[in-house]
Amino acid sequence: MRRRGRPRDPDMEARVYSVVVLVFAEKGWAGFTLDEVARRSGVGKASVYLRWRDKRELLLAAMRDRLEPFQGWTQTGDLREDLKAMARYVFGMYWGWAGLAIMRLWLDARTYPDLFADLRDFYLFGSVRTVEAMIAGAVERGELPEGTAPALVLGTMFGVATVQVSMAPPAPGEDVTARTERYVDNLVDMVLTGLRGGHPPR
Amino acid sequence: MRRRGRPRDPDMEARVYSVVVLVFAEKGWAGFTLDEVARRSGVGKASVYLRWRDKRELLLAAMRDRLEPFQGWTQTGDLREDLKAMARYVFGMYWGWAGLAIMRLWLDARTYPDLFADLRDFYLFGSVRTVEAMIAGAVERGELPEGTAPALVLGTMFGVATVQVSMAPPAPGEDVTARTERYVDNLVDMVLTGLRGGHPPR
Repeated sequence: MRRRGRPRDPDMEARVYSVVVLVFAEKGWAGFTLDEVARRSGVGKASVYLRWRDKRELLLAAMRDRLEPFQGWTQTGDLREDLKAMARYVFGMYWGWAGLAIMRLWLDARTYPDLFADLRDFYLFGSVRTVEAMIAGAVERGELPEGTAPALVLGTMFGVATVQVSMAPPAPGEDVTARTERYVDNLVDMVLTGLRGGHPPR
Repeated sequence: MRRRGRPRDPDMEARVYSVVVLVFAEKGWAGFTLDEVARRSGVGKASVYLRWRDKRELLLAAMRDRLEPFQGWTQTGDLREDLKAMARYVFGMYWGWAGLAIMRLWLDARTYPDLFADLRDFYLFGSVRTVEAMIAGAVERGELPEGTAPALVLGTMFGVATVQVSMAPPAPGEDVTARTERYVDNLVDMVLTGLRGGHPPR
């Protein structure tokens, strides 16, 4: 009922959401304040406090709106190409603030499970569904053995990117494309050979 | 010079360090305060402020003291066993607050590189050295082909554990040992087969 009679300002909302994700990426939940969001988005504090009940409500809305998992993802029908595209997508996300925000969420959901379990599941299940669909397609086409575990594929695709980007973030001015491609090729070779148990697919 | 004439109290230091790592694991840098450390460790604020110059100095000392990478790690001389032991070690760390603190460090080092680059490198190079020694031993024994990339092994060992624990943290009362073992077996099978390119080692 709080919005009755007041027209929504979609530009304001989008501006605030972008700043929310940035501030959360930089500081996590412990450093996230509506005041900083208002200041950096140029939206008056009063408007922010009128529109969103509290900082958790704002963070959840912004993350769901801005960082939908694998938005627009489609399978090509070739497992090697799909795995490479997925690895590139994940690397691309983690090089930037989007991946940083999602990593902050994983950690904050462990500290404050009551606050963030729903949002964590939104990303978890969104990612799991995408990986499961990719594996199911590959099993159907005979590219992977029956019973291939989605958890391992999920873990390696996200894990290698997380570790690479976290442990050795981009140097100032580094073009990360070349580094990404080097890992993507090696990673997909290893995963494909490993999942197929050393046997070529039928 | 600040400590001249005052005997060190090693119990006090150890107590403070443990609390530091816990508070940092829960909140990250943006929520880390000397006041909370003093309160939760039961050490007077004045003593904390006398002993450590600022919160960064305290955090760095505590992390280096408490969470040395792969402390006491030794190779067995069998790659499959070493990989399993490493995967178990990494999972064990990430299930608890130690891994959470290190993950917080990766993210905070991206937000505040000037503050944390040294500490990040301490963990990065410590881990890389351990993985490189394991791979070098395995190549020497003919268990892995020459030129095997440490980055992939590091990425999968740490990455799969990070993703599993972050995305699906322990349920209340869950015994995580069974879950760990399931992943460790599948992961090591996949990595070994993948790194060997589907060929048995000589």
